[in-house]
Amino acid sequence: MEPGDFERLDDLNFRGRKIIQDKREFCFGIDAVLLARFPRWKQRERVLDLGTGAGIIPLLIADEVARVDAVELNPTLWDLARRNFALNHLEEKIILHQGDLRRLSQFMARESFDRVIVNPPYRPLGKGKICPCSGVATARHELTATLADVVAAARYALRFGGRLAMVHLPERLEEIFAALAARQFAVKILRFVHSFVGAPAKLVLLEAVVGGKVGAKILPPLIIRDDKGNYMPEIYGN
Amino acid sequence: MEPGDFERLDDLNFRGRKIIQDKREFCFGIDAVLLARFPRWKQRERVLDLGTGAGIIPLLIADEVARVDAVELNPTLWDLARRNFALNHLEEKIILHQGDLRRLSQFMARESFDRVIVNPPYRPLGKGKICPCSGVATARHELTATLADVVAAARYALRFGGRLAMVHLPERLEEIFAALAARQFAVKILRFVHSFVGAPAKLVLLEAVVGGKVGAKILPPLIIRDDKGNYMPEIYGN
Repeated sequence: MEPGDFERLDDLNFRGRKIIQDKREFCFGIDAVLLARFPRWKQRERVLDLGTGAGIIPLLIADEVARVDAVELNPTLWDLARRNFALNHLEEKIILHQGDLRRLSQFMARESFDRVIVNPPYRPLGKGKICPCSGVATARHELTATLADVVAAARYALRFGGRLAMVHLPERLEEIFAALAARQFAVKILRFVHSFVGAPAKLVLLEAVVGGKVGAKILPPLIIRDDKGNYMPEIYGN
Repeated sequence: MEPGDFERLDDLNFRGRKIIQDKREFCFGIDAVLLARFPRWKQRERVLDLGTGAGIIPLLIADEVARVDAVELNPTLWDLARRNFALNHLEEKIILHQGDLRRLSQFMARESFDRVIVNPPYRPLGKGKICPCSGVATARHELTATLADVVAAARYALRFGGRLAMVHLPERLEEIFAALAARQFAVKILRFVHSFVGAPAKLVLLEAVVGGKVGAKILPPLIIRDDKGNYMPEIYGN
């Protein structure tokens, strides 16, 4: 379980949990932490995390729900997630699958989840620089899954009335609404994340429901830092 | 020019401007004021205000632009707007039309404006209580113009590359995106209005461009009151 070359071991400062990451691969950011805290989790529910990376989201939500299934395509990240779930003694609660979310039907039963959570690649191909390092590129750019692929996978996995939680770039909001509407989702909750109170939104957290009625609530803005540059109390909270 | 029975005369505390309103009809709210201040107006531009009511928006923006055309269907409100533009000596700058925005082609040239501004009825028919008083009902409910009607009228009036500024309810954001996309608009700027920093959004201000590229910027939240219930400095600003 010791970190290898190019690896780092971080304490999550959360129930003693630790995470090993590969410095050459995509390492989790505040996006994943805010996303994991965003839904009101329910103890009886089954959750699917699409593109789990090194497993950050399951590590943060495992205690809140009945079971988490996590899917990762990249073999390096998949192996990190496997080791991280073992390191935290969560192999019973978190079931890890190696696979492609575009081919979910090959290894997952249809409509078998109450919740899907996803921190998808933010940028379409052709936008921004592509990092040559594969795990980073697929986490940032829609190389292995487009927004439409992610939404289709979520719809496949969720029962009617099930909920999708996602974090994304605000500039893609219009596309997100259209992609969700095309797959029977209605956006119910939006929360914009601002680095400080006077900054444009840098992220949007959203929750959509399969077969729901159209009409979203916009929660109070989530402000990351105060005027002095310190984290706001909400950012510390578990 | 004196206010009649059931009328009130208010000082706008803005360049000496005054407004007469009919207490039995819809009186303007903070929505109209925030909307009027939202776009970056340009001196050379021609602006169309759809559903001007007693004329609040033209009174606030007349000095910022080349010319304002204002349309009102309700004869009582149309007459108030006419009197208000005269009262403020703005008959040269603001051209008032009595007419139905659903039939704009009968009295307006196609694609003849740089900007359209609209504070439309917020609620679909069948949602919320309908006020028996006609001017109030048509201002609040989509009795005489639906969201699709408003967007179609804006598209008719705007040149390619022209901009629409609108205020609406956040809960209708998904419908707004769809209605705009159906008429060649791309949403470029969104700003959510919160009564205080910890409250859900009560309004959304948005700017969309005809034929623009999809991708909106979410501005910093507009917070109306501070923790003590006082207006924030931005609300006072002209």
